[in-house]
Amino acid sequence: MALIVHKYGGTSMGSTERIKNVARRVAKWHDAGYQIVVVPSAMSGETNRLIGLAKEVMAQPDPRELDMLASTGEQVSVALLAMALQSLGKDAVSYAGWQVPIKTDSAYTKARIQSIDDAKVRADLDAGRIVIITGFQGADEAGNVTTLGRGGSDTSAVAVAAAMKAQECLIYTDVDGVYTTDPRVVSEARRLRTVTFEEMLEMASLGSKVLQIRSVEFAGNYRMPTRVLSSLTDPMIPLEEEANSGTLISFEEDTHMEQATITGIAFSRDEAKITVMQVPDRPGIAFQILGPIAEANIDVDMIVQNQSVDGKTDFTFTVPRNDYQRALDVVNSNVKSLIGSGNIVSDSRVSKVSVVGVGMRSHVGIASQMFRTLSEEGINIQLISTSEIKISVLIDEKYMELAVRVLHKAFGLEKA
Amino acid sequence: MALIVHKYGGTSMGSTERIKNVARRVAKWHDAGYQIVVVPSAMSGETNRLIGLAKEVMAQPDPRELDMLASTGEQVSVALLAMALQSLGKDAVSYAGWQVPIKTDSAYTKARIQSIDDAKVRADLDAGRIVIITGFQGADEAGNVTTLGRGGSDTSAVAVAAAMKAQECLIYTDVDGVYTTDPRVVSEARRLRTVTFEEMLEMASLGSKVLQIRSVEFAGNYRMPTRVLSSLTDPMIPLEEEANSGTLISFEEDTHMEQATITGIAFSRDEAKITVMQVPDRPGIAFQILGPIAEANIDVDMIVQNQSVDGKTDFTFTVPRNDYQRALDVVNSNVKSLIGSGNIVSDSRVSKVSVVGVGMRSHVGIASQMFRTLSEEGINIQLISTSEIKISVLIDEKYMELAVRVLHKAFGLEKA
Repeated sequence: MALIVHKYGGTSMGSTERIKNVARRVAKWHDAGYQIVVVPSAMSGETNRLIGLAKEVMAQPDPRELDMLASTGEQVSVALLAMALQSLGKDAVSYAGWQVPIKTDSAYTKARIQSIDDAKVRADLDAGRIVIITGFQGADEAGNVTTLGRGGSDTSAVAVAAAMKAQECLIYTDVDGVYTTDPRVVSEARRLRTVTFEEMLEMASLGSKVLQIRSVEFAGNYRMPTRVLSSLTDPMIPLEEEANSGTLISFEEDTHMEQATITGIAFSRDEAKITVMQVPDRPGIAFQILGPIAEANIDVDMIVQNQSVDGKTDFTFTVPRNDYQRALDVVNSNVKSLIGSGNIVSDSRVSKVSVVGVGMRSHVGIASQMFRTLSEEGINIQLISTSEIKISVLIDEKYMELAVRVLHKAFGLEKA
Repeated sequence: MALIVHKYGGTSMGSTERIKNVARRVAKWHDAGYQIVVVPSAMSGETNRLIGLAKEVMAQPDPRELDMLASTGEQVSVALLAMALQSLGKDAVSYAGWQVPIKTDSAYTKARIQSIDDAKVRADLDAGRIVIITGFQGADEAGNVTTLGRGGSDTSAVAVAAAMKAQECLIYTDVDGVYTTDPRVVSEARRLRTVTFEEMLEMASLGSKVLQIRSVEFAGNYRMPTRVLSSLTDPMIPLEEEANSGTLISFEEDTHMEQATITGIAFSRDEAKITVMQVPDRPGIAFQILGPIAEANIDVDMIVQNQSVDGKTDFTFTVPRNDYQRALDVVNSNVKSLIGSGNIVSDSRVSKVSVVGVGMRSHVGIASQMFRTLSEEGINIQLISTSEIKISVLIDEKYMELAVRVLHKAFGLEKA
């Protein structure tokens, strides 16, 4: 019998009524003859409630104890879902990560999965049981509870699916798939039936936040077919229909042979950029600027350094807008004195727009078409960064929606 | 260094502010040079909230999943308390029952502790850490989470104290000790500085609900000195004062040599009695009446069967008033036809009053003094049941307070 892993997010598990709906959906798959493992998140709001309690006790809670605390949210979910399935007459059993066990390293609050022992789960499945496993968590070698960090339930689901060689991992969420861009910005945005793993990586990290990035990496490493689909449909819609809905992250290279060159337009509104002017162009300078930023635990996204003139260059990087003031403080207090550079120029009102597509590997002229489209609308490009399958530009935030719309149209993404 | 186990109830852990107070108190003991293990309950209301969720999902929740669910309440508590201690500069670590491990049988929702491995805890203590262990729970041989049932945190604390040969187990609660009777009924009621294990058993099971009965049994089996004291005092009162407050359950037989004959007056208001009249007096009849009651999971308390007359006798038992109607239904539907007995007589407005004291072993006339005192007030005794260290009577509930007051006075309990 084919094994399918289902993952349900916090919204889908948000109340006992919704948990009963999840149970109906899972039971439908089980009735159709599939072996089912379910990985649910904590009920929506629960993880925040727990972390709020921790912060009332201690401004910077100890990571080990924070994991001990936060992991209870998913344990509540799995027990309630097991009960809901039992009330439908299904044999179901729940496990916390440590019971499986899902072994991780000891990096509390951001642990990485090292191994999954599937013997117990396999025996339950073979006995006809539906198995429910806590997302987001595991235990280290010494038996300490660890969590994988926010959104880690996606990673748990894909990891369990990979370890058990499931046929497919279904990530049920409150969107019905991955779109060519955000439908709230471009009404013609179209749902993609498939994306490649690489495209999904770029789409996820660039702001189309459908799947947690580490779960996509996991899916990629293990070539685990993973489908994003809606948990908001009637749980009793025909299984055939549901099984083909959403967006499948595919590992078949030829999936895209007949498709458009460009897969989608990703964007991220809340960016900020910092430029250190007149930096002496010598080895180690990038580290001297970004080292203190990394130490302050600020994620740097785009990094651009241009050709130097007279031994000096300008060094620009972007950070999430939330971290802008902190990043600027770090630069002002450490970097300037350290490298004796000139002025610091910064702007916290910028956005990033990216064109993504595996197809651009084999097509020329994508970049020039992107730049021409933007220039025709009078949109100035402040920064450019490219990879094999995407081109990102930084622009004034007030033009962001316009840029996404015109690029979506220019690449014909509204056409199936 | 002497080891002390502290146990804090749900009210003491009821908010992050209160948890900080618990931490201050624990830190005070640690500062004084004691090794400390803390066993807290779930935050007040949390266990009920979780069980409420379960009942929304399933009218009769599966016991294994219920334990999986309910055990999260204490896990939240231990993590928050560890953080609170850390914020006071203490090295502290929390463990769930399965991490210690505390091994139990597999009787979900009412498991019994089988063994406690103290190696990990001992190592932490020796390294100067305060160790916090979830109350109420453990894991069975197969690694399933189990709970000990309501009030089980007391049992956990005493069991941990016994396993680790602690000097004393301190049960912090919202009363400041065990009294000669309920001070709300008799204002002259006096706090007992010590009670014997046997007296505590009788006091606890008879309604002075200070300690869970199983924890008292545990204390008795392991001769673990256990003190009930208040968690409502200022956490920074001098340790000497706190260490001698409350009531100590003692295992020194001679503690009572100089004390009064009677230790206290216990009572239980919400009783109900059922009498099966004209029962044929033959072997097996008690089982035929009470078997169906036990199968319905109803606790029977007093059981009285008198000398038969003409081969017939009357058989009376009491049940908690909450179970009265159910018990009566069971008797009416099963028992009557089964044994062909006469009428069923029942009364749901009765209370039990008991005189308790190890001293009565060596004193005669206690029973007659009790009966005379009640008769002088015109209180009719409906049922009498005795053990070595207590005499219980069942009376009309409207006389309960009066009976407790006059007995308290008759035995001079207001005098130290």
